[in-house]
Amino acid sequence: MCCLAIQRLAAHASPSPCPGAGLPDAAFWWKERATCCKVRARRFGSQRQLVVVEPSSTAGVAVLKLKNLPVNSFSLEFLTELIINLEKLENDKTFRGIIITSDCPKAFSAGVDLREICGKNPAHYTEYWKVLQDLWLRLYLSNLVLISAINGPCAAGGCLIPLTSDYRILADNPKCLIGLNETRLGISAPFWFKDPLVNIIGHRASEHALQLGLLFPPAEALQVGIVDKVVPKDQVQSTALSVMTQWLAIPDHARQLTKNMIRKPTADLLVKHRDTDIQNFVSFISRDSIQKSLQMYLAKLKQNKD
Amino acid sequence: MCCLAIQRLAAHASPSPCPGAGLPDAAFWWKERATCCKVRARRFGSQRQLVVVEPSSTAGVAVLKLKNLPVNSFSLEFLTELIINLEKLENDKTFRGIIITSDCPKAFSAGVDLREICGKNPAHYTEYWKVLQDLWLRLYLSNLVLISAINGPCAAGGCLIPLTSDYRILADNPKCLIGLNETRLGISAPFWFKDPLVNIIGHRASEHALQLGLLFPPAEALQVGIVDKVVPKDQVQSTALSVMTQWLAIPDHARQLTKNMIRKPTADLLVKHRDTDIQNFVSFISRDSIQKSLQMYLAKLKQNKD
Amino acid sequence: MCCLAIQRLAAHASPSPCPGAGLPDAAFWWKERATCCKVRARRFGSQRQLVVVEPSSTAGVAVLKLKNLPVNSFSLEFLTELIINLEKLENDKTFRGIIITSDCPKAFSAGVDLREICGKNPAHYTEYWKVLQDLWLRLYLSNLVLISAINGPCAAGGCLIPLTSDYRILADNPKCLIGLNETRLGISAPFWFKDPLVNIIGHRASEHALQLGLLFPPAEALQVGIVDKVVPKDQVQSTALSVMTQWLAIPDHARQLTKNMIRKPTADLLVKHRDTDIQNFVSFISRDSIQKSLQMYLAKLKQNKD
Repeated sequence: MCCLAIQRLAAHASPSPCPGAGLPDAAFWWKERATCCKVRARRFGSQRQLVVVEPSSTAGVAVLKLKNLPVNSFSLEFLTELIINLEKLENDKTFRGIIITSDCPKAFSAGVDLREICGKNPAHYTEYWKVLQDLWLRLYLSNLVLISAINGPCAAGGCLIPLTSDYRILADNPKCLIGLNETRLGISAPFWFKDPLVNIIGHRASEHALQLGLLFPPAEALQVGIVDKVVPKDQVQSTALSVMTQWLAIPDHARQLTKNMIRKPTADLLVKHRDTDIQNFVSFISRDSIQKSLQMYLAKLKQNKD
Repeated sequence: MCCLAIQRLAAHASPSPCPGAGLPDAAFWWKERATCCKVRARRFGSQRQLVVVEPSSTAGVAVLKLKNLPVNSFSLEFLTELIINLEKLENDKTFRGIIITSDCPKAFSAGVDLREICGKNPAHYTEYWKVLQDLWLRLYLSNLVLISAINGPCAAGGCLIPLTSDYRILADNPKCLIGLNETRLGISAPFWFKDPLVNIIGHRASEHALQLGLLFPPAEALQVGIVDKVVPKDQVQSTALSVMTQWLAIPDHARQLTKNMIRKPTADLLVKHRDTDIQNFVSFISRDSIQKSLQMYLAKLKQNKD
Repeated sequence: MCCLAIQRLAAHASPSPCPGAGLPDAAFWWKERATCCKVRARRFGSQRQLVVVEPSSTAGVAVLKLKNLPVNSFSLEFLTELIINLEKLENDKTFRGIIITSDCPKAFSAGVDLREICGKNPAHYTEYWKVLQDLWLRLYLSNLVLISAINGPCAAGGCLIPLTSDYRILADNPKCLIGLNETRLGISAPFWFKDPLVNIIGHRASEHALQLGLLFPPAEALQVGIVDKVVPKDQVQSTALSVMTQWLAIPDHARQLTKNMIRKPTADLLVKHRDTDIQNFVSFISRDSIQKSLQMYLAKLKQNKD
C-alpha cells in the first residue's frame, strides 16, 4: 500500500464538540472526511464513512469504529478505507495505540463480503484478495498497540482484525460467537489466518477448531485462548482503554522491536507466498461449482432480507 | 505404498449378520478376507486376520479392529495389512471416517514388534522402518476422519495411531496408560513421533514427557492433552461414533483442505528426511550393543511367558 | 569455547569436610580453586570464586552455586568462569546432572552486568555478547540434566539459565519474580531468549510477556508455565535433588539423544545467526542515546547504593 498517497491526519483534524458522553475529558474530536480520500476516487465516491476515527480519552490512543452496515462485511471499499486510516494513524506520531471496535449493532464483523467474490472477474478477485492480504500485513506488523474491542459476533474473515491485534476483549454475550467457521461454508481459511491462530491458541486447538469450523461462545473463547478477556458488553471499550494504558507504559521502541521479532517469521510466510496464495484463491473461487453455490447462498440471504 | 495393487473394498464386502450387540441398527457387516490379500503372499500366508474392518452403525464410518494378539505389536505383516486396509478405505467413496480400536483385551497397541528389529539383517530393518513410516504418512495425511478409540494401554510406537488421528478417546482405566516411553527402554523416539506430539501437547510438555519417557494415566493424559476425551471403557466406541457424527457434519472437501494445510508442513519433514531417518535407524539398531540388549530383553519376556 | 584448555575436574578435587548442614551423607566436598583457572589469566586475576561447585548428596549430581555479589550480575569474568565450570562438569564422566542455584541472598541472577555494556568499546561488546551466546549454547545443548533451583528474583538476562535448563523450581516468595522485563528498560530481549520462552510457555504467552516485560510472581509463573514447580524457599534445593533423581532414572544416552532431537532446531537458529546477532547488538548498544541512558541508569544505581 506504499503507493497510496498518505496525507497526515493532523492536517485534516477538525476540532468539534466530543460526542462521547462517557468521555468528558476529551474536549475535542476530529473526523476524517471521506472527501479527503481523493486517491482512488472510484472507491470513495460514496459520501458515507465506513471507518470513523476518534481520539479516545487516553492520550495517544485512537478509536477506530467500523460502520459498514449491517454487519461490517469486508467490501473492497471498506477494506481500502480501513487500510488508509490505519496507514495515516501509523504515520501520525501523536498516536501510539488503536482500539478497533464495531459501530454496527449486529456484529463486530462478518468478514468477506460475498458480493466481492461472486459474479465478478478474476482481475477483481485478484485485487480483492491482495487488499485483504494488505490489511493483514498492515495490522499484524503494526508499530502501534492494537486492541480489538469485540462487541458483537465475529466469524470467519471477521476474525482477521482480532487475530492480528495485540490484545482481544470479547463482550460477554451468548450472541458474541467468535471463530473461523469457514469449513461450515464449504471453504477453507487461508494459511495466513491459520498461522496467527496457531500462534494464539496452539496447534492442536487450531487443528480442531479449523476443521470443525468452531464458533466459540465467550466462556469457551476465553478458555481456548482466542480472546484474552471477557467482560460485560458495556465495559468492552473502557476495558480496552485500561488495558491500553498498561501497554503504553512500555517504551514504544523496545516494544516495537520485540513485537517485530516475534511476528516477523509469521508475516514473512505471507509475504513470500502471497502471489501463489492469490493464484490459488482466484482459481478456487472462479470454479463454476463454487460460483454456483455462492450465488445460491446470496439469493437465499437476499430472500431472507425481503 | 502406491505400488500395492489395491482392490476396492466394495468388491469384497460380504453381508452377514452383525455381531455387534450394542449396534442393532447395523443389520449387516462385512469382513475383508485375508485370502483377498494375495499381493505379497509371503506376508499373508497366515489365515488369521490382523485387521478387521466393520462398517459402523453410522453411515460412511468403518471400524478398524486391530487384533494381533496378545498386544497388537507391529509385526511387518500386521503393518502391511493395516496399510492395505487403510488404503482401501481411503479409496472407497462410501467411507468418510474410520474409528480405530483394539480387539485385544490386553492393549490398544504395544508398538514395534521387537522380533522385527532383533536378529535380522539391515535389509529387513530398512524395509520394516520404511513400512512404519508409510503407515504414519498414510494416517497423518488421511482424507478420512480418523478417531482413535483407545481401549487399552498404548505405549511407545503404539502411540503412532493416536498421534496421527484427528481425535483421541481414552478408556478411563488405571491400566490404560498412554505415552512415548522409549527412553526408558534405552532408545529415542524418532522425530516424526516427536513432531505430532509437539503439535498436540506443545513443546515444553513434549520435551518433558519424551525425555522422561512418561506414561500418562487417563486423568493426566487428558490434562496434558495427549487425548481429547476420557470415558468409561464400555463407552469408548459409542463416544467415538458420537464424536464422528460432529466431524461428518462438515463438508469433506473443505475439511480435507484445512487438515492438509495444517498437517502438510509436519508431514513434509518426514517425506524430506525419511531416507536419512532410515539410515540412522538401521545403523543404530544394527549395533552389537543394541542387538545384545534387545536379545536379553526378548529372552526375559519369553521367560516370563513360560 | 572449544579453544579453552579444559582441565579435568577430578584432578583438582580437594576433599574437605562438607559445609552443607542438611546433607550429612555427603562426607566430602571439593572446591575448584580459582588458581586452577590459569587460562586467560586476566579474567581470573581475582582470588574470589564466582562459581562454587559442590557434589550433592546424590551420586553424579553437582550443585553449582553462583556467588557474584550482590545479585549475580553477568560480568565477563563470571560468565567465563561459569562456562569453564560447566565444560569441566560436562567432560567429567562422574557427573550426570547439575543443580544451578544462587549463593547471593538478594537474587538468583540480575542478568547482564550493565558495566560490561556501557562505556566500553565495540571490541569489548563483541566479546561480551559472544560469551553470553556461548553460555546459552553450552547450557541449552548440555548432555547433563540441568535443574534451576531459583531461590531469588530472576529478571531479564538472569532468566538465561532457567530458560535453558531441563526443569525449573521457583521459591514461593513474593520477592521471587521471574521474567524477561527487557522492554521496561527500553531494550529488547534477543531472539535466543524469545525462542526457548516460546518453547516453554507458547507463542501467545511469550508475545504478551515479552512486549509488556512481565515479571511473574510465583503463582503466576507456575500458571503460565515459565517454571515447573513452586515450593517454599527452604525446600528449593531438596526438591531439585528429588526431581533430579527422577531424571537420572532414565538411561543417559537415550535421554541425551531425545533432548538433542528436540532442542537442536532452536539451537541451530542461534548458531546460524550469531554473527548477525552480535553485529546488531554491538551497533545498538554503541548508540549515543543508549549509552547515555545506560550511564544515567548506572549513576542512579550507584547513588542509591551510597
